[in-house]
Amino acid sequence: MTNPTAAMLVIGDEILSGRTRDSNMHFLARQLTDRGITLGEVRIVSDDHDRIVGALDDLRARYDHVFTSGGIGPTHDDITADAVAAAFGAMLDIRDDARAVLAAHYERTGLELNASRLRMARIPEGAELIENPVSAAPGFTLGNVHVMAGVPAVFEAMAVSVLSRIAGGQALYSQSLTIQRGEGEIASDLATLAKAHPDLSIGCYPFQRDGVFGATVVVRGAEKTQVDAVLVRLGVLFPEAIA
Amino acid sequence: MTNPTAAMLVIGDEILSGRTRDSNMHFLARQLTDRGITLGEVRIVSDDHDRIVGALDDLRARYDHVFTSGGIGPTHDDITADAVAAAFGAMLDIRDDARAVLAAHYERTGLELNASRLRMARIPEGAELIENPVSAAPGFTLGNVHVMAGVPAVFEAMAVSVLSRIAGGQALYSQSLTIQRGEGEIASDLATLAKAHPDLSIGCYPFQRDGVFGATVVVRGAEKTQVDAVLVRLGVLFPEAIA
Repeated sequence: MTNPTAAMLVIGDEILSGRTRDSNMHFLARQLTDRGITLGEVRIVSDDHDRIVGALDDLRARYDHVFTSGGIGPTHDDITADAVAAAFGAMLDIRDDARAVLAAHYERTGLELNASRLRMARIPEGAELIENPVSAAPGFTLGNVHVMAGVPAVFEAMAVSVLSRIAGGQALYSQSLTIQRGEGEIASDLATLAKAHPDLSIGCYPFQRDGVFGATVVVRGAEKTQVDAVLVRLGVLFPEAIA
Repeated sequence: MTNPTAAMLVIGDEILSGRTRDSNMHFLARQLTDRGITLGEVRIVSDDHDRIVGALDDLRARYDHVFTSGGIGPTHDDITADAVAAAFGAMLDIRDDARAVLAAHYERTGLELNASRLRMARIPEGAELIENPVSAAPGFTLGNVHVMAGVPAVFEAMAVSVLSRIAGGQALYSQSLTIQRGEGEIASDLATLAKAHPDLSIGCYPFQRDGVFGATVVVRGAEKTQVDAVLVRLGVLFPEAIA
């Protein structure tokens, strides 16, 4: 059985201009890995209708799930719902269930449910709402696309809610070793190990700390015994390695 | 005159698995913005030959520049040079100029220029080397694709070197205001301003701090007087705004 696959689409000029540093991607990547869902690709595009539709069409055809982040607020640059509806050829309008969620929230907080805020009740036909326990305005799932907010606290709450209802896979077992040698010293042995264990993913991630080059070797696989066997072999090859 | 455009392609399983948090994207985004080059899209793909080639072909046709990060080290999972050569139909082999750079570096540091390290001298035919003042192994520019290392210190040094030799555009003038109101309170006025100033980019970025919702409005444009006029207008509309 192969694991489900996923892609993420981050929508936001503020990330591309360097004004904001994205954190949703890192959060989602960890959540998916823990659940045995393989994140195969991430795209970040600007607040541009055609670019969003193009990326959605490409990604939803190639991955089991697409998670989007950003562009579902009340302002003029929030165009994600329009783009998702266009990609699916679905009608987009204010929906009673979403309006009811917003009305209850704004009544509770004493704020007005004005025309701008009502934009957040525009949900494509056929979509299922994603609960937003932080600020009420819901996300939605349409087909295999899960549309979530960009504000990290809201994104994270929505992601946990969506992930609780989709099927995961077998989380890969993973071990890592840090070796205080340049990659070039260990590359040949790693290549031999990778060739001998085609079912495992053996990654080598170089780093530089205080002017010293080293590498972290990460071994991942479905079978614990196989992963551990490679780990032991690495320990023999590089006795100075630190688990 | 429109500004040059760019895309970034991050190559690395370690980002997609959530093991590592990317910082190169944020660094490059800021550098490009400062130089008046518009970063239109970022993609993160796994260490998979076909996916890298597919993304390269798509991006290099649509943007003036493509910057890649990762996958040019000495290990078996470093396949970026192969993918770039394949995308351009260029020959890939150890090149004398790159080998000379590596040989000098390893002689200086007393390490062996072994077969694994020699992999880093594999440079596509016709490419121009990108200097690596940190750890010697060069990046390269082929056509409009700039291939750089994933280790942040090396990526940053290479990016600065590449950016010094490509033409920038007019850096956009930008002003921002923080307003302690929910986006829904200010969205209508912002939409009116955005409609009245089609040459400007007016973005609204919500945040939540200590349970209070607020929004940062960012106004960008080529003309300082236009941007400042909108800023003044925002100050009149929202007297509590903080510049």
